[in-house]
Amino acid sequence: MFIDTLIEKIREKDNPSVVGLDPKIEYVPSFIKEDMYKKYGKNLKAVAEAILLFNKYIIDAVYDIVPAVKPQLAYYEMYGLEGMRVFYETCKYAKEKGLLVIADGKRNDIGSTAQCYSAAYLGKTDIDEGISEAVFDVDALTVNPYLGVDGIKPFIDDCVKYNKGIFVLVKTSNKSSGEIQDILTQEGRSIYEIVAEYVESWGENKKGKYGYSCVGAVVGATYPNLAKILRKILKNSYILVPGYGAQGGTARDVAHCFNYDGLGAIVNASRSIMCAYKSEQWKNVYSEEKFYEASRAEAIRMRDDINSALRDRK
Amino acid sequence: MFIDTLIEKIREKDNPSVVGLDPKIEYVPSFIKEDMYKKYGKNLKAVAEAILLFNKYIIDAVYDIVPAVKPQLAYYEMYGLEGMRVFYETCKYAKEKGLLVIADGKRNDIGSTAQCYSAAYLGKTDIDEGISEAVFDVDALTVNPYLGVDGIKPFIDDCVKYNKGIFVLVKTSNKSSGEIQDILTQEGRSIYEIVAEYVESWGENKKGKYGYSCVGAVVGATYPNLAKILRKILKNSYILVPGYGAQGGTARDVAHCFNYDGLGAIVNASRSIMCAYKSEQWKNVYSEEKFYEASRAEAIRMRDDINSALRDRK
Repeated sequence: MFIDTLIEKIREKDNPSVVGLDPKIEYVPSFIKEDMYKKYGKNLKAVAEAILLFNKYIIDAVYDIVPAVKPQLAYYEMYGLEGMRVFYETCKYAKEKGLLVIADGKRNDIGSTAQCYSAAYLGKTDIDEGISEAVFDVDALTVNPYLGVDGIKPFIDDCVKYNKGIFVLVKTSNKSSGEIQDILTQEGRSIYEIVAEYVESWGENKKGKYGYSCVGAVVGATYPNLAKILRKILKNSYILVPGYGAQGGTARDVAHCFNYDGLGAIVNASRSIMCAYKSEQWKNVYSEEKFYEASRAEAIRMRDDINSALRDRK
Repeated sequence: MFIDTLIEKIREKDNPSVVGLDPKIEYVPSFIKEDMYKKYGKNLKAVAEAILLFNKYIIDAVYDIVPAVKPQLAYYEMYGLEGMRVFYETCKYAKEKGLLVIADGKRNDIGSTAQCYSAAYLGKTDIDEGISEAVFDVDALTVNPYLGVDGIKPFIDDCVKYNKGIFVLVKTSNKSSGEIQDILTQEGRSIYEIVAEYVESWGENKKGKYGYSCVGAVVGATYPNLAKILRKILKNSYILVPGYGAQGGTARDVAHCFNYDGLGAIVNASRSIMCAYKSEQWKNVYSEEKFYEASRAEAIRMRDDINSALRDRK
């Protein structure tokens, strides 16, 4: 099961954090960029090759210290067909290095269409009678719950069938997330609480050997007080926590998403790791040519920062 | 402006309906499928070529009678990189035939990431200083509002800058859409009403010459009573209506999404048009080899069915 493997990798590496691979060409060091512009011209092909190489450098730098990577699909779709190829190649490379891959796509649709998304990322696509193929074949996918259970069930079915996972948006990290998610119902409960209860119920009877289900939740690091409430509702669900680092969430903030045994959450950072070589903390320690060492240093700092906050909480 | 062009094409063709291009290999007639299997083997490449040809036949059969097509991204992502190429080629071909293209992707994310999705479909992607490129370059995109305005604003900005449109999910056509969308707030209003009010406010000051804004809404044909309420709230927003045909919505149902001048809504049908040659109504009229004539006949039947329901209402 995905969630069991995730927990085992978290324990093995003593690291409940994932590296977000949300690359923009602006993040790629000049020496890689210029090299590709020279080779292919200033076009999408050059940009794609530069980003793929950048991603591989970062994966090489962190694969032995993190359990998973989280590529954000928007950043690949942005570069068109070449970008989607980079997404595919990046996932493949990460899996070869023993990393779990959580595709952040926030996909959602009515049942029959959700089934197609699920086939694309978690399950298999039918080619002809008796012949099917895993396409993007990642380990987990983020999904949006606005359409209710019949848009979620096809993903869950594939999670069970193919040992995969999903993370359902509950409370997102952005400023305006409350416009819908914080609305109070007639019973005085918020939409995010109701969605959290759905998530918990959708994962019932789908638990792995450590008690967590294949249906996880997304709860932003930027709302630590809500995280406390949601951690209680989401008894058997793992929480994927974006918003640490560049978005302003601290290790103390994210600690609320964890259970007291140190399990129950996995924290993502993207920009702060990918662009570590440009940061105040690391830019004078590592040259641009050694950008990946800055990424590794930042990934280690993040791991230690979160682990220390978890220890302090005990 | 997209919305002005849409209205002009609707008037010119006297047809407020769009053809959904949501192709599965199972929908493609055997003679096309077998041909491609022979050529390429039973693999994703063969499937992609078969679907692309199928799409082109359907576009050829309907481009002079419908204003737009609506490819559903999930059906292309399902076939991997080859599928995304088919999406790109299909959009290109439809645009060459003078059709507007509404990509149904229900994309959503926090602001910085929403910006990437918007660049992919509506705006442009930066390649290097001063160089940018339109990537998938469709006319409009469906988006999911669960993250609130800061996940929507990047799309709206590109709508204004590049003359594009979005359709925000308000009330979807599926059975379980009410699980979140129908929840009543403390003031006794439903989530779909609140979202509709957001949509209306997001489109303020972004109206074209016919009074409709670049921010539209998605309201399923399967909830005709709610459509009446939503048509009133969405004063300046066009409504994209899925759920007609295969999902059970009738012309009388969808009529509630229109204003009395015959504008204000555009109705989608996918399976009933793509698979018309397999339907009770058309399978004895057109052979499988003439599947595209069945699609055309069904598209005309749908147009007349909706126009007749709109006339009856007056």
